[in-house]
Amino acid sequence: VNTQLLLISCPDEPGLVYKITGVLYHHAANVTSNHEFVDHETGQFFMRTAFTGAERQETILGELAAALPASAIVRLAPQQRRRIVVMATKEPHCLGDLLLRHFSGDLPATIEAVISNYDDLRPLVEPWGIPFHYVSDKDRQRREHEMQVEVIIEQYSPEYIVLAKYMRVLTPLFVQRYQQRIINIHHSFLPAFIGANPYRQAYQRGVKIIGATAHFVNDELDMGPIIVQEVLSVTHSSSARDMAQAGRDVEKIALARAIKLVCEERVFLSGNRTVIFE
Amino acid sequence: VNTQLLLISCPDEPGLVYKITGVLYHHAANVTSNHEFVDHETGQFFMRTAFTGAERQETILGELAAALPASAIVRLAPQQRRRIVVMATKEPHCLGDLLLRHFSGDLPATIEAVISNYDDLRPLVEPWGIPFHYVSDKDRQRREHEMQVEVIIEQYSPEYIVLAKYMRVLTPLFVQRYQQRIINIHHSFLPAFIGANPYRQAYQRGVKIIGATAHFVNDELDMGPIIVQEVLSVTHSSSARDMAQAGRDVEKIALARAIKLVCEERVFLSGNRTVIFE
Amino acid sequence: VNTQLLLISCPDEPGLVYKITGVLYHHAANVTSNHEFVDHETGQFFMRTAFTGAERQETILGELAAALPASAIVRLAPQQRRRIVVMATKEPHCLGDLLLRHFSGDLPATIEAVISNYDDLRPLVEPWGIPFHYVSDKDRQRREHEMQVEVIIEQYSPEYIVLAKYMRVLTPLFVQRYQQRIINIHHSFLPAFIGANPYRQAYQRGVKIIGATAHFVNDELDMGPIIVQEVLSVTHSSSARDMAQAGRDVEKIALARAIKLVCEERVFLSGNRTVIFE
Amino acid sequence: VNTQLLLISCPDEPGLVYKITGVLYHHAANVTSNHEFVDHETGQFFMRTAFTGAERQETILGELAAALPASAIVRLAPQQRRRIVVMATKEPHCLGDLLLRHFSGDLPATIEAVISNYDDLRPLVEPWGIPFHYVSDKDRQRREHEMQVEVIIEQYSPEYIVLAKYMRVLTPLFVQRYQQRIINIHHSFLPAFIGANPYRQAYQRGVKIIGATAHFVNDELDMGPIIVQEVLSVTHSSSARDMAQAGRDVEKIALARAIKLVCEERVFLSGNRTVIFE
Repeated sequence: VNTQLLLISCPDEPGLVYKITGVLYHHAANVTSNHEFVDHETGQFFMRTAFTGAERQETILGELAAALPASAIVRLAPQQRRRIVVMATKEPHCLGDLLLRHFSGDLPATIEAVISNYDDLRPLVEPWGIPFHYVSDKDRQRREHEMQVEVIIEQYSPEYIVLAKYMRVLTPLFVQRYQQRIINIHHSFLPAFIGANPYRQAYQRGVKIIGATAHFVNDELDMGPIIVQEVLSVTHSSSARDMAQAGRDVEKIALARAIKLVCEERVFLSGNRTVIFE
Repeated sequence: VNTQLLLISCPDEPGLVYKITGVLYHHAANVTSNHEFVDHETGQFFMRTAFTGAERQETILGELAAALPASAIVRLAPQQRRRIVVMATKEPHCLGDLLLRHFSGDLPATIEAVISNYDDLRPLVEPWGIPFHYVSDKDRQRREHEMQVEVIIEQYSPEYIVLAKYMRVLTPLFVQRYQQRIINIHHSFLPAFIGANPYRQAYQRGVKIIGATAHFVNDELDMGPIIVQEVLSVTHSSSARDMAQAGRDVEKIALARAIKLVCEERVFLSGNRTVIFE
Repeated sequence: VNTQLLLISCPDEPGLVYKITGVLYHHAANVTSNHEFVDHETGQFFMRTAFTGAERQETILGELAAALPASAIVRLAPQQRRRIVVMATKEPHCLGDLLLRHFSGDLPATIEAVISNYDDLRPLVEPWGIPFHYVSDKDRQRREHEMQVEVIIEQYSPEYIVLAKYMRVLTPLFVQRYQQRIINIHHSFLPAFIGANPYRQAYQRGVKIIGATAHFVNDELDMGPIIVQEVLSVTHSSSARDMAQAGRDVEKIALARAIKLVCEERVFLSGNRTVIFE
Repeated sequence: VNTQLLLISCPDEPGLVYKITGVLYHHAANVTSNHEFVDHETGQFFMRTAFTGAERQETILGELAAALPASAIVRLAPQQRRRIVVMATKEPHCLGDLLLRHFSGDLPATIEAVISNYDDLRPLVEPWGIPFHYVSDKDRQRREHEMQVEVIIEQYSPEYIVLAKYMRVLTPLFVQRYQQRIINIHHSFLPAFIGANPYRQAYQRGVKIIGATAHFVNDELDMGPIIVQEVLSVTHSSSARDMAQAGRDVEKIALARAIKLVCEERVFLSGNRTVIFE
């Protein structure tokens, strides 16, 4: 069955659900799931509706535009695997986990290509038949390097870009180009240990829980909207190295969950917070 | 603000959300939250809507009855603390935790009275100014005892009855009388260790996780619809007594969460499963 | 049976366990549990041994002093409930949970008294027969107020002081007096949201996990050694108020666990980190 | 540094730790970590000691044999990666996760070979340079098939055999041959849903938590000693298929943790329970 997703974000006002479901009903859509949420802090309304059957999508979008506030953001998208490009550096754990889920069919996405600023992870990627692009950043300006990366990304027309331990800061130009389409995995809770070697810091502070945060990338480093946070317990006998390993495990889990949520179009932005329909 | 909850369960068919929200819209209701779910296994539709403003409740219910399938179950109830009666035996942990949450204002319910088949817990209850009724079951037939309990329950007109470690099996007559209104806490996952001394069994089996299950009571012992399950880790160095203590902690948490969900009218029944709008 | 706990912390060197267990063996001690740990970062050795049978404690301590490095810290203490004084302000959740565990027998401590800078929590405490001392801090210098509190504390000779949401910063003089004997519960992970209204901050940052940290108090605000950290998940639909309630639940659990660990003498300090033998 | 592990299990009696550490001390061993546990139910003593420096292993074992009860089980083994053979059928998630950890260096084991009763997983294994053996069980007696498998296993002299979703019951002869050396991952808590299609059963029972259990294999199906149990939450909106996917995630985590614990020689058997030194 060909399922469509209707995704709406607009200022709240009376009758929104009635008007939206009315358009679908009159087009004989068969609604299979429906989620709404009003952020009472910002007065913003969010809705995700899955339906089958109604086919005149242009007309539906037109009627919705007429019924909703002018500032409404309305998308209609098929429920199918999203195209993603994964960027990585040297650490294999997140990338490998995504490749494995791709192989198992557990990821609602197809990995179109992997781009890395080092060549180390090539043997992890190529056996799966996925293109691996090595774009060295050595002796290159940040923006110059990024533009090479962008050329490759564009070949694959991905819907989302996943930073699976890509250890290079992106410029505002890059972030702007892929606004709300870049998912990053951060090695910690946010807010938390800032800067280099967070597990060393966590060890020295004697924490009992290790976390990881998957978030959208925006212009402020590590300040983008949080999608998923995961935790694992550690003890005094965990060395900084053990904590780093526990950290890798939570990173894998948090990133995979975030990709699943985003690619199933379950994540909306409400300012710097996310609304997630599970 | 006077918030009303509209709670609907009926066979799924096209246009339900449109029709329901239409009735509310035409009565100028201000919908503040809305949840729907279709159980595709059973074809049953569930909806919980919170709204303010619309006051002609009789008319709303009449219009909904006309719009919905004949077998629809429709309730309209104020969003306010529910009246509960708590039944207990000798163990203080769950009862005490509920009393404390009652005092803190964290429970969306008022504890109208406590009924026990032993007198042990009286000093835990009376300082809070809550009536404690001791109804001994000694030398009494099960049904005879229950009828005495029912007389006391009826004085308080509770919406829900909470079994906070009430260690006596209820007869089908009692369960029938308070259909889907009795919440029990079970000392284990369900399905799991059956019978007496479950923590002894768990210890001997060497389990690494202890659980508890809050569920509605129905005619089959421990087989009622599950509302909440919680877990805690244990280790080889946990004795059966330590496991029992960990068990008390998860029981407290699971029962309190279940009461909160039920008293906020977030729990619907779909056959023997629950649908929970959080 | 009269169980003794032997608690040792000293610089690591070869043969420590052999020498220590030798002293116990020659005194015919029956060792029932034994934990050791070497912090390889600091070269410090920690040991907790529970034994029965050996009664000439002075001699044992003397022989250990002769066998161990001069800087060793050696304690011999009976395994019995510790005396604690609880300090609180206005929030009932942590204090109430401790009183309940005290009543249930789940706390390896006796609550000797409660001291508060407000009178609000008196009705929560007195029904249990526990002294409640109201020491107003209104119009008093910080140190002047503390000295009044210290007079009351001294009447009860507590082994540990528990800050169960005591919302007043302590002076270095107070902290010094009860060095490594004050347990605090902090409304967050550490490191984390600093300053007032942390749940408001957590809400605005859109976090998906709420935490709490129980720690020893030292001279730096919220920087003392961490004993226990606990977490709960929250979602976009959790208001700042819901997050605060989830926060209260994890605070209760983290504080109770920390008191249990400390009062069973399972917590050692290794610099600003804790070593915990569970 | 060449670290050795001393692993002892024997009936408890006074002075065991003293005698054992004495032997090591006199051989100038540098003990880097030490764990002991007495199971007071069975009176059995367990000890795991890591040390460097002492090299006359034969003499150490001889002296220990003289000092300990006659029924003591004493092993001395180097702390190094263990050799494992993985057996699988058609599901890639556990096997793939192990291969990935192998590649990342996170597994304290080397995967010597993979054996499967189907050929499906070959493309997952061979790119890593690990031998894949397909031994069809079609039209073969159970024991006949197993004997072929045993021949292959023996080529690799593995210390442990990991059943990574190997969907075939083993005969007592096979289990006997690799006594306490076979690790299995079970799709559920134990005890729990028995029989085919456990996630269908879990869905129908409406459970809110999904678990997995890693255990040693013994003669009774799914009754071997539990090593690790893990859980994930599910909701009413989780289909049986979603539950199966959550189940795959916990299976991966539980199996990887169990292999780590076993290969680091942290797991002892006490009857049908495990003692685990973390």
